[in-house]
Amino acid sequence: MKRIAVYPGSFDPVTNGHLDIIKRASGIFDELIVAVFNNPNKTPTFSMEERVALMEKVAGEVPGVRIDAFSGLLNEYAVKKNARNIVRGLRALSDFEKEFQQALMYKKLNPDLEIMFLMTSQDYGFLSSSLVKEIASLGGCIDGLVPEPVKEFLIEFYKNKDQRN
Amino acid sequence: MKRIAVYPGSFDPVTNGHLDIIKRASGIFDELIVAVFNNPNKTPTFSMEERVALMEKVAGEVPGVRIDAFSGLLNEYAVKKNARNIVRGLRALSDFEKEFQQALMYKKLNPDLEIMFLMTSQDYGFLSSSLVKEIASLGGCIDGLVPEPVKEFLIEFYKNKDQRN
Amino acid sequence: MKRIAVYPGSFDPVTNGHLDIIKRASGIFDELIVAVFNNPNKTPTFSMEERVALMEKVAGEVPGVRIDAFSGLLNEYAVKKNARNIVRGLRALSDFEKEFQQALMYKKLNPDLEIMFLMTSQDYGFLSSSLVKEIASLGGCIDGLVPEPVKEFLIEFYKNKDQRN
Amino acid sequence: MKRIAVYPGSFDPVTNGHLDIIKRASGIFDELIVAVFNNPNKTPTFSMEERVALMEKVAGEVPGVRIDAFSGLLNEYAVKKNARNIVRGLRALSDFEKEFQQALMYKKLNPDLEIMFLMTSQDYGFLSSSLVKEIASLGGCIDGLVPEPVKEFLIEFYKNKDQRN
Amino acid sequence: MKRIAVYPGSFDPVTNGHLDIIKRASGIFDELIVAVFNNPNKTPTFSMEERVALMEKVAGEVPGVRIDAFSGLLNEYAVKKNARNIVRGLRALSDFEKEFQQALMYKKLNPDLEIMFLMTSQDYGFLSSSLVKEIASLGGCIDGLVPEPVKEFLIEFYKNKDQRN
Amino acid sequence: MKRIAVYPGSFDPVTNGHLDIIKRASGIFDELIVAVFNNPNKTPTFSMEERVALMEKVAGEVPGVRIDAFSGLLNEYAVKKNARNIVRGLRALSDFEKEFQQALMYKKLNPDLEIMFLMTSQDYGFLSSSLVKEIASLGGCIDGLVPEPVKEFLIEFYKNKDQRN
Repeated sequence: MKRIAVYPGSFDPVTNGHLDIIKRASGIFDELIVAVFNNPNKTPTFSMEERVALMEKVAGEVPGVRIDAFSGLLNEYAVKKNARNIVRGLRALSDFEKEFQQALMYKKLNPDLEIMFLMTSQDYGFLSSSLVKEIASLGGCIDGLVPEPVKEFLIEFYKNKDQRN
Repeated sequence: MKRIAVYPGSFDPVTNGHLDIIKRASGIFDELIVAVFNNPNKTPTFSMEERVALMEKVAGEVPGVRIDAFSGLLNEYAVKKNARNIVRGLRALSDFEKEFQQALMYKKLNPDLEIMFLMTSQDYGFLSSSLVKEIASLGGCIDGLVPEPVKEFLIEFYKNKDQRN
Repeated sequence: MKRIAVYPGSFDPVTNGHLDIIKRASGIFDELIVAVFNNPNKTPTFSMEERVALMEKVAGEVPGVRIDAFSGLLNEYAVKKNARNIVRGLRALSDFEKEFQQALMYKKLNPDLEIMFLMTSQDYGFLSSSLVKEIASLGGCIDGLVPEPVKEFLIEFYKNKDQRN
Repeated sequence: MKRIAVYPGSFDPVTNGHLDIIKRASGIFDELIVAVFNNPNKTPTFSMEERVALMEKVAGEVPGVRIDAFSGLLNEYAVKKNARNIVRGLRALSDFEKEFQQALMYKKLNPDLEIMFLMTSQDYGFLSSSLVKEIASLGGCIDGLVPEPVKEFLIEFYKNKDQRN
Repeated sequence: MKRIAVYPGSFDPVTNGHLDIIKRASGIFDELIVAVFNNPNKTPTFSMEERVALMEKVAGEVPGVRIDAFSGLLNEYAVKKNARNIVRGLRALSDFEKEFQQALMYKKLNPDLEIMFLMTSQDYGFLSSSLVKEIASLGGCIDGLVPEPVKEFLIEFYKNKDQRN
Repeated sequence: MKRIAVYPGSFDPVTNGHLDIIKRASGIFDELIVAVFNNPNKTPTFSMEERVALMEKVAGEVPGVRIDAFSGLLNEYAVKKNARNIVRGLRALSDFEKEFQQALMYKKLNPDLEIMFLMTSQDYGFLSSSLVKEIASLGGCIDGLVPEPVKEFLIEFYKNKDQRN
């Protein structure tokens, strides 16, 4: 039986921290579905299409990785994809409790699901999509924080935004 | 002298976790006032009337419990009701610090008030009103998370919402 | 029915933080049993007799308070005393998780028990018996940290200890 | 070489907790620049002008303190001001992780910067600008929470707001 | 290539929480080596032989699981066993930071190792080997906390200990 | 007036994390006294002489740094040395609460003292003297965790210890 895992997130946009988790998790499973999530309660900075396209560019070639988009309940999505594992990155500096709360809920909704946490690599312990956007929007240097295509995309995005304002 | 306590919250909507605290706290005091709170800085999903009505349905019959609505400062409300105790549920997975910060402030505003924390039962450690709404809005099963009347109310609410969109 | 609560601890020795909890908790219940605990896995600095005697001196006169000593399981002790409530002080700076872990265990062993947490008053948020002993053993000033009889006892204790060494 | 430090914040409005940090930090450095920050991602309650004016009133006379306003990246601002140190207040009850995340990011963007944390004094451990505004907006007493000019400003502000509504 | 993981611990003794992790982790890998660890810096309550024998009794039959004993450095042990993954249980109420610190160290010593965290099931969130021993030593009921053979072993152990004293 | 700060610790032994704090803190003050502490309640692995000698070797040449040994109360020591500041390293993964508790106590004993926290550099966030000793005692590689002289000392120490056993 193929071992399939889902790595869900809004990836708004994907950072080097996400990419690190993708590379490491892909080695553990036969197939890793990176699932860009559409949260109806949040307004992302970038559209689902933009987020999926950036993810394709930076993680599309990682062996065993497939990019997908989904909305709705994560546990139902996982079942539909025959995935028995959910992968989440855990930062020493992240909201540990929120992760746990979500995981317990998914476990309750679907006891067969196994949620696994990988430690975010030390170099990216402070990194988050919103921090990257904050720096980029203020014209700061984001080298080493996001993959090259994301960097170019962000610079372009905030340049245009400034011109509109 | 009658021992009166206030259990304040937005209860937007009341969950099984809240109900568990109500049942347990009501045994400690002669009277427990479940006070549905109108926070001027937040927009609740459900109206004050809806939240009070749901609370009446699920907790109105618990011995020693009275349902009320209030806005303004909690400490002034407590004094007006002759309540010397505030009850708060504390989840292992909740924002412990925020609870403490609020409690210290109320204590400073009114040193006679005694804020007591009851541990949320293990079964509801992951539960919050917003998680319940998130699941319900995505069509997920909320059995065991909220009392029956709340479940029916939520299903109806999100069915209507979908039809409007 | 009389409302009885147990406030357990090693009280090695009792500090102003403990005393503050005792005074506040005694107002909530008809009877508060301050139960000096003999933990078989720890070696206290002071004997059970010394700890009980100090507690009698500083809290013996608080209305509704009774001092007792116990060993064994807290939940069985509480049942024997007809106490349905356990009171614990919670410091913003204390080991919150350890408290919760203990409380969940007692709740599992005896579901009828209700464990309540009172916030330690802000002035004593940093205070612990071991900190007090550390300062006293180094000859530091412990005014305001422990009640007067405890202060005298500690000064005497560490003076004698120095002379023996 | 003059030792210059920056104490950044939105100060929306300045509280007694901020003022305490300012007084203590000013003693450590030759010059302390209190830098009122314009965060493009948040909408402050009070305008930059109001926040700077209040800060001038309450901290303008503290020896070695200079008030300034800035937008953009903190690390670039510090470099421009020849400041090698950033001062942040750290509350036992604050979002410790968020502070750390920000600090690590600034450290990465500019490794020469030294971020220092001062413990918020125990009396203000629960205090935040938003708590103060919440109390003031509900007509509660904010004596001892903010300096006198801020208190008057807030009372006036919420009185006018009520009349408009 | 066979996917091998190591689940290390002192298992002093194995609890239902450990067993839950073993069963869930064994489904993720081709082989799970439950490695009873001999920590030279701690004195376990039970001998290595006793801890391995109990583990054999309760987990020896789980498909894909092999029991082993080891001392020395975990990362070197994992390499020797051709295991690229380390599994650790993470309790909401456990020492999260200590786990992370250990994991970061092993990652530094051996960057190829992948440390994965599984959430301890909600029912065992409060459980630890030392809590179980504390209850058992005081004659409390440990049904549901440890597997049957461990329960019998503990009861026998503390009966004998009492007779010796 | 000369700005003097004390950086206290048991340094049992000094790690690269400590050294990083020393170098960074020395730039903030005119004089930094690295004070090796003799805690009467703990038994260090290495003698005071050994710990001071290692510190001299690795930090003795840092400009503005002076090495000293002390026992007794930190606040009294600081006063005697005319130091108004205490420096402590703060790891994202360290016992934050314990640091705060100690700091609040020293602040209470001596309100003029200013305790400042510097963030441990990201590379050393997982590092502690006891982790280093654990690895070294098991024959693991400690390159990059401690300065060269400490490494040689530890290797020698554990070689001799093994021969004695």
